[in-house]
Amino acid sequence: MRERLKELVQSRRWEATIISLIVVNAVTLGFETSTQAMAAAGPVLVLLDRLVLAIFTAEIALRIYAHRLAFFRDPWSLFDFAVVAVALMPASGAFSVLRALRILRVLRLISVVPSLRRVVGGLVAALPGMGSIVLLLSLVFYVFAVMTTKLYGASFPDWFGTIGRSLYTLFQIMTLESWSMGIVRPVMEVYPLSWLLFVPFILCTAFTVLNLFIGVIVSAMQQEHEHTAEADRQAIHDETGLVLGEVKALRAEVRALRSELARPVAGQGD
Amino acid sequence: MRERLKELVQSRRWEATIISLIVVNAVTLGFETSTQAMAAAGPVLVLLDRLVLAIFTAEIALRIYAHRLAFFRDPWSLFDFAVVAVALMPASGAFSVLRALRILRVLRLISVVPSLRRVVGGLVAALPGMGSIVLLLSLVFYVFAVMTTKLYGASFPDWFGTIGRSLYTLFQIMTLESWSMGIVRPVMEVYPLSWLLFVPFILCTAFTVLNLFIGVIVSAMQQEHEHTAEADRQAIHDETGLVLGEVKALRAEVRALRSELARPVAGQGD
Amino acid sequence: MRERLKELVQSRRWEATIISLIVVNAVTLGFETSTQAMAAAGPVLVLLDRLVLAIFTAEIALRIYAHRLAFFRDPWSLFDFAVVAVALMPASGAFSVLRALRILRVLRLISVVPSLRRVVGGLVAALPGMGSIVLLLSLVFYVFAVMTTKLYGASFPDWFGTIGRSLYTLFQIMTLESWSMGIVRPVMEVYPLSWLLFVPFILCTAFTVLNLFIGVIVSAMQQEHEHTAEADRQAIHDETGLVLGEVKALRAEVRALRSELARPVAGQGD
Amino acid sequence: MRERLKELVQSRRWEATIISLIVVNAVTLGFETSTQAMAAAGPVLVLLDRLVLAIFTAEIALRIYAHRLAFFRDPWSLFDFAVVAVALMPASGAFSVLRALRILRVLRLISVVPSLRRVVGGLVAALPGMGSIVLLLSLVFYVFAVMTTKLYGASFPDWFGTIGRSLYTLFQIMTLESWSMGIVRPVMEVYPLSWLLFVPFILCTAFTVLNLFIGVIVSAMQQEHEHTAEADRQAIHDETGLVLGEVKALRAEVRALRSELARPVAGQGD
Repeated sequence: MRERLKELVQSRRWEATIISLIVVNAVTLGFETSTQAMAAAGPVLVLLDRLVLAIFTAEIALRIYAHRLAFFRDPWSLFDFAVVAVALMPASGAFSVLRALRILRVLRLISVVPSLRRVVGGLVAALPGMGSIVLLLSLVFYVFAVMTTKLYGASFPDWFGTIGRSLYTLFQIMTLESWSMGIVRPVMEVYPLSWLLFVPFILCTAFTVLNLFIGVIVSAMQQEHEHTAEADRQAIHDETGLVLGEVKALRAEVRALRSELARPVAGQGD
Repeated sequence: MRERLKELVQSRRWEATIISLIVVNAVTLGFETSTQAMAAAGPVLVLLDRLVLAIFTAEIALRIYAHRLAFFRDPWSLFDFAVVAVALMPASGAFSVLRALRILRVLRLISVVPSLRRVVGGLVAALPGMGSIVLLLSLVFYVFAVMTTKLYGASFPDWFGTIGRSLYTLFQIMTLESWSMGIVRPVMEVYPLSWLLFVPFILCTAFTVLNLFIGVIVSAMQQEHEHTAEADRQAIHDETGLVLGEVKALRAEVRALRSELARPVAGQGD
Repeated sequence: MRERLKELVQSRRWEATIISLIVVNAVTLGFETSTQAMAAAGPVLVLLDRLVLAIFTAEIALRIYAHRLAFFRDPWSLFDFAVVAVALMPASGAFSVLRALRILRVLRLISVVPSLRRVVGGLVAALPGMGSIVLLLSLVFYVFAVMTTKLYGASFPDWFGTIGRSLYTLFQIMTLESWSMGIVRPVMEVYPLSWLLFVPFILCTAFTVLNLFIGVIVSAMQQEHEHTAEADRQAIHDETGLVLGEVKALRAEVRALRSELARPVAGQGD
Repeated sequence: MRERLKELVQSRRWEATIISLIVVNAVTLGFETSTQAMAAAGPVLVLLDRLVLAIFTAEIALRIYAHRLAFFRDPWSLFDFAVVAVALMPASGAFSVLRALRILRVLRLISVVPSLRRVVGGLVAALPGMGSIVLLLSLVFYVFAVMTTKLYGASFPDWFGTIGRSLYTLFQIMTLESWSMGIVRPVMEVYPLSWLLFVPFILCTAFTVLNLFIGVIVSAMQQEHEHTAEADRQAIHDETGLVLGEVKALRAEVRALRSELARPVAGQGD
């Protein structure tokens, strides 16, 4: 029974059904944002949404029953579980924001469509290699956030009033959005030397992000390169193998000649 | 007759004529935007434009006659056809916007000039490899558009009133244009925690676009690399071939020696 | 006499003198922009500037005398000539703008300092490979400029009034500067569908510029790669050479053995 | 005694202690920016900060005592020294800005955590290769700064009043922040042809920065490539070594055969 269920939830038809349900759900959740659509067919949309949610919940339950603890070891299954769990949480009162998160359910498409799964897997696999440089960037952000909060917090509370605000403003500056006309020029009107802090910050973060970027490119390239290098070495191995075979055959021939010569000579010596 | 026409429409002189007609047409269409030029030489410009259009229409007709159905199988021919067809459509009343599209005719330069054709061919060839990542990006856009519409649509109808508006605003945020001073800071004044949604969105899309970019670079690099790897393997093959030839000649020599020794010894044994 | 002059203008000491003169001139031209510095030491600055200009003029004259027509065949010499010629042109009345161009003289540093010369040479060498893609980009710009002028010129004369203004605005949009809040959102208030034109324009130019960029990277990488591939092939050649030498020596040995065996056997047959 | 101290300051436990002290200090310095935290636990925070500073000072003193002059030859030690020295300087009156720099102490994390040390080492190692191109960029900036100061300084003193202001404005333009709507369009209203100066400036600097970028990528890639090329050559060397060994063994065999044949024949000849 459990085995048959396992086969079912891993079958192609099941996958296709889930994909089409996700797409239908994406469309109904999209229409729910339109007041016109809600006025015209509100109850139908809500019903469809609940129906799909019920099917998803049942599917997750079936998969947990089929795979048992192995379900919670697969990151993609946990992703599916979390996305459905969000939709099941009560979304009233203080948690009404959770209602907007129900659309996250559509992200299940990533775990179901193999090509999307591969792309996201690749993106996630690139993250650990970025660890050190992200830590460095965080350190630079924290140091600059404390400095700007201390120096400009009193005069510009909206931008640098707390460490949190400073971090946000520095993130904005790193993306170069309105950094000069919007932030640094006004600050320079009060503290004329503040460019001594912001321009190095921009250069530092740009250089660090550039290196993050280069690291990702180089490692992607290297992986690709490893494949061709492997093939190259195989080609060399095969080519040399031909020569080696020929030389070994030759050596066998010489050895045969040597033993042929040894016998008659021995006979002659009799 | 049809064969001679085919030769004609594929000849160098025909190509040169078409290129110069396109350039002339580009200039006249440019002048048509200037009220001064229209006042001074309006009728001439319009006449020239109609003349070139007539020639283009005749050329397309000739090519269809010459190549018959094969014409509609070549994507560049379809491109030429579409671009001329747009100019022939009635451009009055509700369709007056089509008059502005007549300049698209100048894009025929791409299908006529071989180097442009190669460049555009290369760009288009890079598209299929981007499929999965573009699908992922669309999914992320849709999910965030539904969320922002639900959460901020009521307070900021111009930016997040409908899914369409949210998609446009999110595209603007992805390009980092005024994302903070223009959009997120005003939104944060009403919903102080909205940065929890926008900052991850920026990081997600930036990281995804970066990977799109890296994918294109790596595949371009790999193609280039394949060529040199091919040449390397050929070099290894040639070099090994020399050794192999020498070893084979040596083996022949040893075999000859062996048969030479076998005969006299046999003679001696008599 | 001419030969001795040639040696002089190509000597290390001459180069060092010119470099220090350029640096001095850069400083004096910098101070000339300051009204305080002009009030304190105006005549000295102007005198120094004229002195350096006179020396530069004399140097160019000497180099023309020394190299004759060959002077005008070297692009770097032409660059030096143009930069000094600009400073000698009358800069009064309508041409007062030329006075600001005198600082271009400092760019002579590029032609004198070898490392700068190499960098700029590299940059210029990368240009021809970008020809087709720059032509394509120009075509796209022209087509969109004509379209936007026709469609939005009447309502937004400052941005799209003429083809020139449209080209400038489209360049601004390509750099993503205020494209949405500054340009497209105001245009969309009059023409709600104008995003159908601007968003594809941004995607098109971003993709084209990206490919321009990738082309430059790939060709730089390939050049680098060619060097290592060359070294690899040499290594293969050397390694195989060792084997080939050994095999040839072996063949000589076998041949010697064969002739040694041929003699005594012949002797025995007697 | 000195040796034992050396061992101590290089031990794992010492490192872990310093790291945790830095983290604690980072947190206290962060809380010091909050007026609420200062009101609640101000004296404790200040005390903790002084305590950590005292420990850091003692640690630096110990390391100087242990390593003597070698301390000042290691750039990371100098970095630690400078960062602690800043915190010891009097921060009253005109130097109150130094108080904000005390957070720089947290950057000691870079010199203590090996992975951060490696990343920053890599970034710094990439700098010398960028020398020429940075010099070129500085030259371009200086030339344009003098030109814009002369041409637009009188009309736009805030942006181009002095060379310093022009440099800052040009840096802003290079980062593309509000370059058109904020700076160039207002300038063009007074000097309609000023785009002739700014658009080439943007293209020049973008192209130069792009090449800076490419240079860093290519050199990173090349380093990576050198490793695989080294491994490839080793593989070729090993493969050929196999063949060479076999051929040498064969040669020994032929030589043995030759000497075997030489003896009996000689014996027969007796």
